[in-house]
Amino acid sequence: MKDKTACLAQDAADRLRGLRDLFQIDDDEIYLDGNSLGALPRATPARVREMVEQEWGRGLIRSWNDAGWIDLPRRLGDKIARLVGAAPGEVAVADSTSVNLYKVLAAALRISRADAPRRTRILSERSNFPTDLYIAEGLARQYGMTLELAEADEIPGRIDSDLAVLMLTHVNYRTGRMHDMAALTRAAHEAGALAVWDLAHSAGAVPVDLNGAQADFAVGCGYKYLNGGPGAPAFVWAHARHADRFEQPLSGWMGHAAPFRFTTDYQPAPGIARYLCGTPPLLSMAALECGIDTVLAAEPLGGIAALREKSLALGELFIELVEARCAGHGLALASPRDPALRGSQVCFARGEGAYAIVQALIEQRVTGDFRAPDILRFGFTPLYTRYIDVWTAVERLAQVLDSGIWREARFQRQAAVT
Amino acid sequence: MKDKTACLAQDAADRLRGLRDLFQIDDDEIYLDGNSLGALPRATPARVREMVEQEWGRGLIRSWNDAGWIDLPRRLGDKIARLVGAAPGEVAVADSTSVNLYKVLAAALRISRADAPRRTRILSERSNFPTDLYIAEGLARQYGMTLELAEADEIPGRIDSDLAVLMLTHVNYRTGRMHDMAALTRAAHEAGALAVWDLAHSAGAVPVDLNGAQADFAVGCGYKYLNGGPGAPAFVWAHARHADRFEQPLSGWMGHAAPFRFTTDYQPAPGIARYLCGTPPLLSMAALECGIDTVLAAEPLGGIAALREKSLALGELFIELVEARCAGHGLALASPRDPALRGSQVCFARGEGAYAIVQALIEQRVTGDFRAPDILRFGFTPLYTRYIDVWTAVERLAQVLDSGIWREARFQRQAAVT
Repeated sequence: MKDKTACLAQDAADRLRGLRDLFQIDDDEIYLDGNSLGALPRATPARVREMVEQEWGRGLIRSWNDAGWIDLPRRLGDKIARLVGAAPGEVAVADSTSVNLYKVLAAALRISRADAPRRTRILSERSNFPTDLYIAEGLARQYGMTLELAEADEIPGRIDSDLAVLMLTHVNYRTGRMHDMAALTRAAHEAGALAVWDLAHSAGAVPVDLNGAQADFAVGCGYKYLNGGPGAPAFVWAHARHADRFEQPLSGWMGHAAPFRFTTDYQPAPGIARYLCGTPPLLSMAALECGIDTVLAAEPLGGIAALREKSLALGELFIELVEARCAGHGLALASPRDPALRGSQVCFARGEGAYAIVQALIEQRVTGDFRAPDILRFGFTPLYTRYIDVWTAVERLAQVLDSGIWREARFQRQAAVT
Repeated sequence: MKDKTACLAQDAADRLRGLRDLFQIDDDEIYLDGNSLGALPRATPARVREMVEQEWGRGLIRSWNDAGWIDLPRRLGDKIARLVGAAPGEVAVADSTSVNLYKVLAAALRISRADAPRRTRILSERSNFPTDLYIAEGLARQYGMTLELAEADEIPGRIDSDLAVLMLTHVNYRTGRMHDMAALTRAAHEAGALAVWDLAHSAGAVPVDLNGAQADFAVGCGYKYLNGGPGAPAFVWAHARHADRFEQPLSGWMGHAAPFRFTTDYQPAPGIARYLCGTPPLLSMAALECGIDTVLAAEPLGGIAALREKSLALGELFIELVEARCAGHGLALASPRDPALRGSQVCFARGEGAYAIVQALIEQRVTGDFRAPDILRFGFTPLYTRYIDVWTAVERLAQVLDSGIWREARFQRQAAVT
């Protein structure tokens, strides 16, 4: 088992270690929840202040032109494109992940209906993030289709000639299990179906190659590994072969071919711009750009590949230490043991007390996440997580378990949000 | 014609004059475009900084509970409810106006289909804001209905037994003409139709009584008279008799009855909460709350009624001065002359040069708005617009017209956004 000295040595040898300075994180804060909400980049407060006080306060409405506000959805999209294997002009930032999923899944269903009208199924994973399933459930009803849910292992076997759309989240939010995007997209295409991917737990964390995989549509989240701040806008991508096909149903003025001509009839903009809808929340967009920039800052150091390498090293260290230091406490690894099948998080299941243990850890300044009903989830953001953080987190987890302090009543009370 | 001294005296006698101190506006900035983007409240920078640096930076994911982030859509909704004649718990803040209109219009169409299945028309105003028409056009197609557009005067005559939904913007974005919400809603109901209202140019500017009018659904904008900042989230209201009927199509997790139980099937939350979808953009929400608070600050001074009174006085002064000082320059009043039919803006049409005149005025620090093809639009925000501002604006407009400076080439170049 690695000891503290070895972890400190790993940090000293880490060529990405300087990236932590891009964030404002208290030195005693062990934050293993960047997959729920990324940490605050140091550049963000000043940029948000500039937008609020200068661009809005002094520039007022003129900033739509003078400060380039109108370009933000595309400019941020182009930056995200570099992280997900998309080309410039293929990604737009808009709305929330849920709303964007509605747009692209509706577009995919329209394409499927036009090209293969007898297909009637949407296939997804039973433990996909619920909002994806809720959106799909509503669209399935609207299109007279059925939403079929399967376990991850069963999915390849369910891809058949009846399938309209395969809709998956690339990295599972509960277990961290990562699907093989290229293989599943290929299988879907061979069966004549489309593949829609949610990159919520992928963008900025693991290598993604949307064009390489020939995926059809994708959406992703701005506030997790992209560090865009609470509720940061999401992004949306369509493969070039689909980009000019069909309107998406949220046909708002920002997706119009000529939004300021104020015509009464809707003409969708060419390409991904038709996936815009209303006026974007610009303060949140400004923060998102700073967040994306922290991931792009890794490019000279090896980019996503280097981040992935460190992410896996952090995860492997965490598993090794937990299994050594917390043995006998009933924690069962709930993420794939094979790192190639894992995103940037490690989860353990525990039949009793998972919520309370996470709460007791938070009191010890180690923030992970509880996911109902029994998951302790720990995310590793290689931009700012250190090996010594992993070591400290496991020490404190061991203390919480050894002492049984989590059984105290104050840790049992479940709040509305966890 | 009122002279400068009289305008200064009006300001001195204005019991709302202190409200201008709630905003950061340069003294030489004549801003008559608060109906495009409200000015910056003085409280906003500090509140946004607090959310960024403390709640996000230090509180991290814990702020969903500890800082009450999860309550913001309802808390801000309750504040807006006071401005639009809604009850606590009836309004939620979420997404953009366009996205919210999609939700409520879809809900209205589902109700109409269930209660009166043979109705096939959505009726709106030809010069309604285009995004409303685009959203309705898409939904009409989806529901096998037709979208019928009529001039404002023709609308009462088009409300008949074939009508499913009357969808109007209360105050027209181009002309400022205000519909009689109570009368048109009553006419729609008597014909068996539903009434959906867009309050983009009403909320915070003119008296609105949604429950008094027995309206069915409403949406509104956060960044105009509510001063919420660029792209601030929008709001959504449903009458209590509809609130628990039907899912809206954007069935995201934030609108689930138990969002953190992570069930695979969608169960809509009771009431307006089902109109939430994804995670809200919190930085923009924080700014929006400061903006709403500036309107609520007028409550002890007479509230919306007092704001309305001043708004009309500003508008009347503007019309009087323009028609006196700019006579012979081809400006034709494009807003209703009867103040009772007007929102909080005054528009003039000019066959040639409307865009260039607005640009030349902006160079003179008088910011109004151009609306294609021929409208010069001036919004009056009684919270911060002074009578002397109106006087100065008209003086400079007269100078621009008298001098013909607007004919110079630099004012003719039309930018992407105006």
